[in-house]
Amino acid sequence: MNDLTISLDPASSAPLYEQIYRHIKGEIQNGRLPFGKKLPSTRNLANYLQISRTTADMAYSQLVSEGYIEAVPYRGYFVCELEGLYCPGTERKKRRPEKERKEETFRYDFSPSGVDLNSFPDGIWRKLSKNILLADNRKIFQLGDPQGEYELRCTIADYLHQARGVLAEPEQIVVGAGNDFLLLLLCSMFGTGQKIAMESPTYRKAYDLLRNLSNEVRVVEMDESGMRIDSLEASGADIAYVMPSHQFPLGIVMPVKRRMQLLEWAAEAERRFIIEDDYDSEFRYRGKPIPALQGFDRRGKVIYIGTFSKSIAPAIRVSYLVLPDRLMDLYHQRGRMISSTVSRVDQLLLANFLDGGYYERHLNKMRAVYKSRHDALLEELREFHGICRISGENAGVHILLTFQNGMTEQEAAARAAKEGVRVYGLSRYYVGADAAAQEDGSGSGWQTAAAEKDGARQSRTVILGYANVAETEIREAAKCLKKAWL
Amino acid sequence: MNDLTISLDPASSAPLYEQIYRHIKGEIQNGRLPFGKKLPSTRNLANYLQISRTTADMAYSQLVSEGYIEAVPYRGYFVCELEGLYCPGTERKKRRPEKERKEETFRYDFSPSGVDLNSFPDGIWRKLSKNILLADNRKIFQLGDPQGEYELRCTIADYLHQARGVLAEPEQIVVGAGNDFLLLLLCSMFGTGQKIAMESPTYRKAYDLLRNLSNEVRVVEMDESGMRIDSLEASGADIAYVMPSHQFPLGIVMPVKRRMQLLEWAAEAERRFIIEDDYDSEFRYRGKPIPALQGFDRRGKVIYIGTFSKSIAPAIRVSYLVLPDRLMDLYHQRGRMISSTVSRVDQLLLANFLDGGYYERHLNKMRAVYKSRHDALLEELREFHGICRISGENAGVHILLTFQNGMTEQEAAARAAKEGVRVYGLSRYYVGADAAAQEDGSGSGWQTAAAEKDGARQSRTVILGYANVAETEIREAAKCLKKAWL
Repeated sequence: MNDLTISLDPASSAPLYEQIYRHIKGEIQNGRLPFGKKLPSTRNLANYLQISRTTADMAYSQLVSEGYIEAVPYRGYFVCELEGLYCPGTERKKRRPEKERKEETFRYDFSPSGVDLNSFPDGIWRKLSKNILLADNRKIFQLGDPQGEYELRCTIADYLHQARGVLAEPEQIVVGAGNDFLLLLLCSMFGTGQKIAMESPTYRKAYDLLRNLSNEVRVVEMDESGMRIDSLEASGADIAYVMPSHQFPLGIVMPVKRRMQLLEWAAEAERRFIIEDDYDSEFRYRGKPIPALQGFDRRGKVIYIGTFSKSIAPAIRVSYLVLPDRLMDLYHQRGRMISSTVSRVDQLLLANFLDGGYYERHLNKMRAVYKSRHDALLEELREFHGICRISGENAGVHILLTFQNGMTEQEAAARAAKEGVRVYGLSRYYVGADAAAQEDGSGSGWQTAAAEKDGARQSRTVILGYANVAETEIREAAKCLKKAWL
Repeated sequence: MNDLTISLDPASSAPLYEQIYRHIKGEIQNGRLPFGKKLPSTRNLANYLQISRTTADMAYSQLVSEGYIEAVPYRGYFVCELEGLYCPGTERKKRRPEKERKEETFRYDFSPSGVDLNSFPDGIWRKLSKNILLADNRKIFQLGDPQGEYELRCTIADYLHQARGVLAEPEQIVVGAGNDFLLLLLCSMFGTGQKIAMESPTYRKAYDLLRNLSNEVRVVEMDESGMRIDSLEASGADIAYVMPSHQFPLGIVMPVKRRMQLLEWAAEAERRFIIEDDYDSEFRYRGKPIPALQGFDRRGKVIYIGTFSKSIAPAIRVSYLVLPDRLMDLYHQRGRMISSTVSRVDQLLLANFLDGGYYERHLNKMRAVYKSRHDALLEELREFHGICRISGENAGVHILLTFQNGMTEQEAAARAAKEGVRVYGLSRYYVGADAAAQEDGSGSGWQTAAAEKDGARQSRTVILGYANVAETEIREAAKCLKKAWL
């Protein structure tokens, strides 16, 4: 009985049975209670420790359920063979914290990928999360539909129809953990070696990702309406990747005429498709709202990608594809095998967030927040008239400043940094031959003189993202920028 | 003022300010309160509706924050231009529920992919989830590390070291939403066109997925120790995909000698690697525990994949890679651009679940549950001695029954189905030339006579997964199987 001299602490927050359970488990793990050893009966243990019989029973049944001891009928409790049981050691490895990437710190950071989280509705989020977990529905821990929960796909279809003019049945929607994953999924469906047209500058991650999977990315020229159709035609590409609502990073909103030409291009061959990345369409400040390209598509040529990471929070890893009907067979053959990447709890939470009207409120609130920042920034930048040209200001959460006084982006960024303000050079988003000089030179190499012109522009344009800079900070930062640039 | 004749319901659960807010919003959305229209002052509104001034203020400020009205200093409140605001229609599209796939229903289903969820610790899960969301730390809604939260990677490293003998620093671990995603990530890192060796039968999804991304999958012969090294050598493959702890579906546990030969094979060329899928190593019933292959690897050749979907719940979409040091540069160049696919909330929840000792308890409990089912099934199957050979019974949560009386898998499954029991034919897991007859014939075509022998075996083996069949059900189902097969 000496084995079980347990010093119980009635003042501890751990209940008595738990203290006994932990003690015996420890003794078994460290070998002091070996395999086959008989334990005292619960009655004896209760007497010995001066505790109730129920407490002793609870401790033993916990040990039985975890496989540390077993009850042999008419004989009593015995220590099991530990082999195969997972017994974490008591000492944990001391780790040095991960090397923090040393980045300069700035007083004001106009990051183009910022999202304002001060308005994140965390109370609602917590309430919805609690409700779902409380529903005591173990079904939500079973593997769900690879396409995503039907309930969520219905609410997304409704939202897209009303807010973006996208025509989609829930059966066409595929939910996934972020745009990057959805592009991987598309590559897995189409197979590699596709000829994909992209603009330059563009969303760099998509470019790198598509190239990593052995697609031929062909860089196509742009004008003020977006991707040029003649250049697209000449590129020989079968898939065009575009952001018609707000090209990243240039901020071009593709006019209806160009959209129609793009759809006509796609209609000319069976194998042609358009990937419409509608990454920040929620925020628009000027001009008539234009429905998504998908809404104009009558021939099933547009693959639409949307996300909640920009409009709710980056850590909400939920994006979605709307596949045209004609691609559903391909999805069922080659895409559906990939299990859903979003937990069902998160999917249901989001469905309730949309259904309860919270998303509507949040979006409208964010739009008001971003519009005030947008207006403040543009007002402050008026003083740069004649020195910088502003573009991309009609939508989204960033603008571009192109220096007309010969200042390069490097110089502009360096001068701003000296005043504590971080701005971002446009050149990091150039791809293909444009970027070749700065990189490994593996661009597609068929570009023309226009690239040269772009090459010139890239060196004197900076990006200012204002999503995560408060209005007062914008006004302070603008003062610093005036010091830096005027 | 007639515009604002609002019928307030003091008995409603919605507070008064909310009722006013909703009414005015509705009037703006349906156009009865047009752009530019002046609203009554809050004082007038309060008088008119016989409510407090504060209530009127709260209703207006909600409308302002969502962009429906604006306050013009010294002039009052005016209706904003609605263009661009997201205003969901009142009527929702009626949807027919998604066509349910009509599957036969069975009284007992021995699915090989089942997981028992009756033991899911939902109370703990709820508590941990609540704690994380209550921490009021908005950081968790910012985009996290693409590799996964450092905290979670530390706990995974500790667990792997103690439970599986895996040697990993948190810096080598990449967290992702499921094994399928992690395979896509590896393809994106390695680039497509890799020559990958797989067994047949194998985990079919991995096979399909790797082939979709234009890798050459070469089917390699197996013997009772697992993948044959001579056949691997002859295949010309550079990457070997294996499940040494418990081959799926055959259940082979690779002995230490073969593991060493596999590591030697990998050491012979710089470009060679081994993917170790350790999908259900937590459950083992007989034989000495063998540490993961990764634990024997001194040359940085093993890429380890583990998952919590099998050991906690399928809807917990968290898996992880352990990359050898020598692949970290490649990951940083080509993998890190892909944002994390798991929400930070889920990652921190899981880290706390491991750190708090809950995972240890849960695993040990599940092991006891599965062992009792395993033992019950084997006991019941004794009566089939001489008719069936049992294999794959030393680990995991399924076994194989090979008929020695000439019965085919189709016949066995059909007879079982008649008695209400679902069992699964092995042939669905055959790939390459083995599966070619049943499929499109696109197998690699370089297989030899051994495939013929396998082809014979595949037609008389069925799989019985017991993870999701309670012990009493197993005994009842066994009675049905005796009727069906004896």
